[in-house]
Amino acid sequence: MSSLFMRAMRGDATPRRPLWIMRQAGRYLPEYRALRAKHSFEQLSGDAALAAEVTLQPVARFPLDAAIIFADLMSPVGALGLSVRFDPGPVLARPVRTAADVDALRVPTPDEIAPEVIQALRIVRPALDRKLALLGFAGAPWSLAAYLVQGRGAPGFPALRALAHRDPGLLNALLTRLTDLVIAYVKAQVAAGADAVQLFDTWAGVLSRADWDRFVKPHLARFLDETKALGAPRILFVQDASHLVSGYASLPSEALALDWREDLRAVRALVGPARALQGNLDPAILLAGPEATARAASALLAQVPARGHIVNLGHGITPEAPLDSVHALIDTVHSERPA
Amino acid sequence: MSSLFMRAMRGDATPRRPLWIMRQAGRYLPEYRALRAKHSFEQLSGDAALAAEVTLQPVARFPLDAAIIFADLMSPVGALGLSVRFDPGPVLARPVRTAADVDALRVPTPDEIAPEVIQALRIVRPALDRKLALLGFAGAPWSLAAYLVQGRGAPGFPALRALAHRDPGLLNALLTRLTDLVIAYVKAQVAAGADAVQLFDTWAGVLSRADWDRFVKPHLARFLDETKALGAPRILFVQDASHLVSGYASLPSEALALDWREDLRAVRALVGPARALQGNLDPAILLAGPEATARAASALLAQVPARGHIVNLGHGITPEAPLDSVHALIDTVHSERPA
Repeated sequence: MSSLFMRAMRGDATPRRPLWIMRQAGRYLPEYRALRAKHSFEQLSGDAALAAEVTLQPVARFPLDAAIIFADLMSPVGALGLSVRFDPGPVLARPVRTAADVDALRVPTPDEIAPEVIQALRIVRPALDRKLALLGFAGAPWSLAAYLVQGRGAPGFPALRALAHRDPGLLNALLTRLTDLVIAYVKAQVAAGADAVQLFDTWAGVLSRADWDRFVKPHLARFLDETKALGAPRILFVQDASHLVSGYASLPSEALALDWREDLRAVRALVGPARALQGNLDPAILLAGPEATARAASALLAQVPARGHIVNLGHGITPEAPLDSVHALIDTVHSERPA
Repeated sequence: MSSLFMRAMRGDATPRRPLWIMRQAGRYLPEYRALRAKHSFEQLSGDAALAAEVTLQPVARFPLDAAIIFADLMSPVGALGLSVRFDPGPVLARPVRTAADVDALRVPTPDEIAPEVIQALRIVRPALDRKLALLGFAGAPWSLAAYLVQGRGAPGFPALRALAHRDPGLLNALLTRLTDLVIAYVKAQVAAGADAVQLFDTWAGVLSRADWDRFVKPHLARFLDETKALGAPRILFVQDASHLVSGYASLPSEALALDWREDLRAVRALVGPARALQGNLDPAILLAGPEATARAASALLAQVPARGHIVNLGHGITPEAPLDSVHALIDTVHSERPA
């Protein structure tokens, strides 16, 4: 029997809504902080056994419905021959800005792409309760390009936007390479046991809709086309980009994941009843404590019918989130009576 | 005869579209960098004579249609008894998070609110060509509260969002105090010679529309109501908040200023022909050089009729912007043939 998560993803009726939490394996957990006291973030994400251990921490503590593999958005780019350090966000040793830079990128074989992440999935799959889904993930090509071109996180990624207007052909060549990478990476994740994958387009919102249509959409369309035969649902997470939601909705992914700013009811009306929607409680509400969390979670459930709704936060859980608020969220979802 | 800017603001036909540039008095200018080599940012914005000098730098170099007073978003909050330093963004000595913190805020007399800014306006007004408009500005109450509650800039301002859900009454009390402050500050700016004022709601986009309607909108409505009799147009700048544009458009300001993500044509259709619109070239395009800038500026002009359109960037000009790109933008706007 397939997991609650996968049934909701297919739009089947379920006894209750499934729930997982973005960044659920993270610093709000005492057991994660204990591991981090002994290992750097790079060590945790770079070692398959440690990454598997971290992946399983939140599902051991909480009755969540999915585990998501612990990895960094930048994990696959090492295979392109790029060197990335963390300070604390990703910093490229050398930004990618010229045709020569793009030509110099390695074309990796599939088994060269983040082998530690693939191995971690292989460790987690048999260790995970069959009632839980295992999720893989990757950064979307545009959001990977953001770091590669800018060199590090920066508000609005101006160097990336400038490149788009200075040399759209060069940007397109880079995005083509990154799309190839993400396709191969996701295929390997599914082969290693991921039931579904989430594509994080964290930085797409810095583009206008016209520029998104031109620069981003064709690459996402190819990603979806070339990973369709895997049979694993693809979740597109679109962040801080209300002006792009209808663009993402026009792409043939099985699910859309939304940040806390979006009106879930309006997006449900936009996409119709067949598409799975994931989200989107404001993670800052957890900081306000369990009562505020339960109240807001109830309001979230009232926004859309249970069918096809996977409950999640609208962004990663923050390190300061109290565990009691997580319990309140879970209890609210678990105690909902089916309509 | 009134300035091109003011005629466009009133929706009158003009021989060409007026143009100014957000952050036009800033680090992309060699003469600004020369002054900054001798004075800190706090010294430049804290001294009326220096602030006036900086304000006039861009209009001396470029045929722009407005000067905007050089000041910091946080300039008025010192009058509340709060201490702010820069690192490099504003950092509060102590965040404002409790009822006692709000009660402890001073209630300033009008002449205690950023007197150096008011004095700078008095210096600039007679020195400025009568064909140019002089703009004042202020941070919107919510965007000031963002720094006061969070203590410093932070992605998404989670402490602010948490307060909104933990104690909405307390947040409302703080926003009421800040709205009083902004109203008094803007009145003093107009009395000192500002022809129009721009209200920067830089951080409103971190809220969902439902939360914005509840927490932000009533305070903006009161600001507009209590400053209407001044007769100076009020420009609302809404940033990174596509989901809120229709909310801002529903408020009775004379003008809306939009960031580069917004579709100017769609917003014109939304607000009708009577409202002035300002914006919204992507400032990153200037980094791509004068040709790309001219091309993008032409495309911008083609989006909406000239009447009621004040050309600007969709965000502050970046320190790396080449002066040639600024010339290309100005030349494109100046060479447009009236329809």
